[in-house]
Amino acid sequence: MSIYLDHAATTYVDQRVLEKMLPYFSEIFGNPSSVHGYGRDAEKAVMAARRQAAEAIGASAEEIVFTSGGTESDNWALRGIAEKQKSGHIITSRVEHHAVLDTCRYLETQGFDATYLPVNETGMVSAQSVREALREDTILISVMFANNETGTIMPIREIGQIAREKGVLFHTDAVQAVGHVPVDVEELGIDMLSMSAHKFYGPKGAGALYLRRGTPIAKLLHGGAQERDMRASTLNVAGIVGLGAAAEIAAAEIESNARHESELSRRLAEGLLALPGTKFNGHETQRLPGHVNISFSGIEAEALLTHLDLAGVAVSAGSACSSGSTKPSYVLLEMGLMTLEARGAVRFTIGRENTRQEIDEAIEITRNTAQRLQQLSPLFMQRKGDEKRV
Amino acid sequence: MSIYLDHAATTYVDQRVLEKMLPYFSEIFGNPSSVHGYGRDAEKAVMAARRQAAEAIGASAEEIVFTSGGTESDNWALRGIAEKQKSGHIITSRVEHHAVLDTCRYLETQGFDATYLPVNETGMVSAQSVREALREDTILISVMFANNETGTIMPIREIGQIAREKGVLFHTDAVQAVGHVPVDVEELGIDMLSMSAHKFYGPKGAGALYLRRGTPIAKLLHGGAQERDMRASTLNVAGIVGLGAAAEIAAAEIESNARHESELSRRLAEGLLALPGTKFNGHETQRLPGHVNISFSGIEAEALLTHLDLAGVAVSAGSACSSGSTKPSYVLLEMGLMTLEARGAVRFTIGRENTRQEIDEAIEITRNTAQRLQQLSPLFMQRKGDEKRV
Repeated sequence: MSIYLDHAATTYVDQRVLEKMLPYFSEIFGNPSSVHGYGRDAEKAVMAARRQAAEAIGASAEEIVFTSGGTESDNWALRGIAEKQKSGHIITSRVEHHAVLDTCRYLETQGFDATYLPVNETGMVSAQSVREALREDTILISVMFANNETGTIMPIREIGQIAREKGVLFHTDAVQAVGHVPVDVEELGIDMLSMSAHKFYGPKGAGALYLRRGTPIAKLLHGGAQERDMRASTLNVAGIVGLGAAAEIAAAEIESNARHESELSRRLAEGLLALPGTKFNGHETQRLPGHVNISFSGIEAEALLTHLDLAGVAVSAGSACSSGSTKPSYVLLEMGLMTLEARGAVRFTIGRENTRQEIDEAIEITRNTAQRLQQLSPLFMQRKGDEKRV
Repeated sequence: MSIYLDHAATTYVDQRVLEKMLPYFSEIFGNPSSVHGYGRDAEKAVMAARRQAAEAIGASAEEIVFTSGGTESDNWALRGIAEKQKSGHIITSRVEHHAVLDTCRYLETQGFDATYLPVNETGMVSAQSVREALREDTILISVMFANNETGTIMPIREIGQIAREKGVLFHTDAVQAVGHVPVDVEELGIDMLSMSAHKFYGPKGAGALYLRRGTPIAKLLHGGAQERDMRASTLNVAGIVGLGAAAEIAAAEIESNARHESELSRRLAEGLLALPGTKFNGHETQRLPGHVNISFSGIEAEALLTHLDLAGVAVSAGSACSSGSTKPSYVLLEMGLMTLEARGAVRFTIGRENTRQEIDEAIEITRNTAQRLQQLSPLFMQRKGDEKRV
């Protein structure tokens, strides 16, 4: 198989996590809502996972509601607050994941107002812009913890403080951040937080919404009284067990993994930026440790991806959720990139188990491939003497 | 472990299904939206599962949208149609699962009208009542395929025909039916159908909505362009593979399993109805093969369940989704049972692998336990000479 450098799209399930999950498919298979022993055993496992997920973000177990993933958590957070408040204004950013962005656009069609904050050239929202956007009728601030394309980490603590001061609810889509950088909802003043297990070596199809105690929210899924009557649906026990185990492992290893990934991403960035016509996209330091987003001048990223795939390096352009789209990344355009630069941007996301050797190999393959494509490209203008640093 | 007779609450994952799922956690772990090899391999697995799910209900692969389970499918079907139509009237029944019932009630708060059709003493909706409830502004008929508490199978073909005649969309919550009785959406005139893998020996957290080609529906989950831009969220590949495999196996074995379960449920019903003060709830023949719902006079079902659990038989009162509720079953009350009869109702649901010996043991344990409780009960009045048949 090729060198996997697309961990932001999804991660494999950690073997230790899978081992914890396995008994919950065919042995301890009860419905946690059932009152008999089979149900109680399943419920016990769910409770343990709830504690694990809570501890990973500094929350209490009863503040965790399990969902089917980050998209459901985001949709529910925004629609649930909006529906409860009936009308009002939402502050978000222009570089949110589509799960937040499209939900805001949907809510605009339902009579809500939304302000989409710009970002600077590193992809960062300013806390000051959040403050300035606040209105009397602002019901919610939703700013992502870290961007999925560039890895840029937003000023969450400052935004949390502003939200507290003004008494406005603060949601953060932390799908890319949880398990990769320390997240503490208490310390950061977060009221709602979306997470997704498959972004930190847990299974797909399992997510959670952290809901600060007492947060008034309408349901997204009506039906059974599961999750203290907040989210109907039979609990995905094995998936939840996996989420909990993955959250616990990620929290325990967060420093060493971040150190490892930072070192490799520095190495990767340096190796690639030595190539003429490249440009680093994102923030130098306020960034997820494994993210490296680089534009290759004169190349369509989709072409580069295809060739890299053949040559044995798996990476992506933008996010997996927009794959197949031929539009340049809206995130990069918002950061001020020219259309051609955005079209030539590739996201490398390094994982726990990538090795220095893999990175060196990926650098060589990418450089060779990019140069070959650039030589074929009428668009390529070699930019000499560019200073490029990470 | 005790004898599991609660297969309608949830089933264990079939070993053959689990085997198919296993590679998709840590080996073929790509995000199906990714364009590289890891993504394509995952996408291939999803496509195969889509065909399997479609074939199990006589649909085409492109008419299957994967969801997180039956509740999401039900919520989406109803809200999606309602939102698209903006206003109108919905016909449903009073014995639907809460996922449909509560969504209809929610839609009533949003300006939609709903008619809740009654059922007869066997728990069946009449097709004639559907016809009579139709209005000029009826946008949707949603009647369950088979009831989760009694197993009573609704006159789906007749309702489908009426829906066709009148040009009204027809949704059916077939969560309890798929994999247990033959379902063919073409033959039955169904436009939308909800299914859930964990009800037919697949994993929890994986469901699907069958959407007849061209059915206009609004999104429930906004975000990425997955599922042909109809349902955002990273696909739960392992869960989907499990759903597909489970659907294929269930379809292949449907007759032999139904025969086996029918035989055992007849045996169980006869054995229990020999006990004085018992009453069979549901339809004698138009019923899911594994369902046996019986009222024990003078006993609170919850007490019986607890004692049965201790004695080694796992069953439920009503549905798992309403477990813990102290209210008598609304389904049974709608069928004309007295409150005390409804309170004394226990649902036994037999599975593929239950044996005759287990059933005989369950009969003996249940009879002994029920008699013991009845003797302690001031409510118990032995009804002599009652004719009870199944």
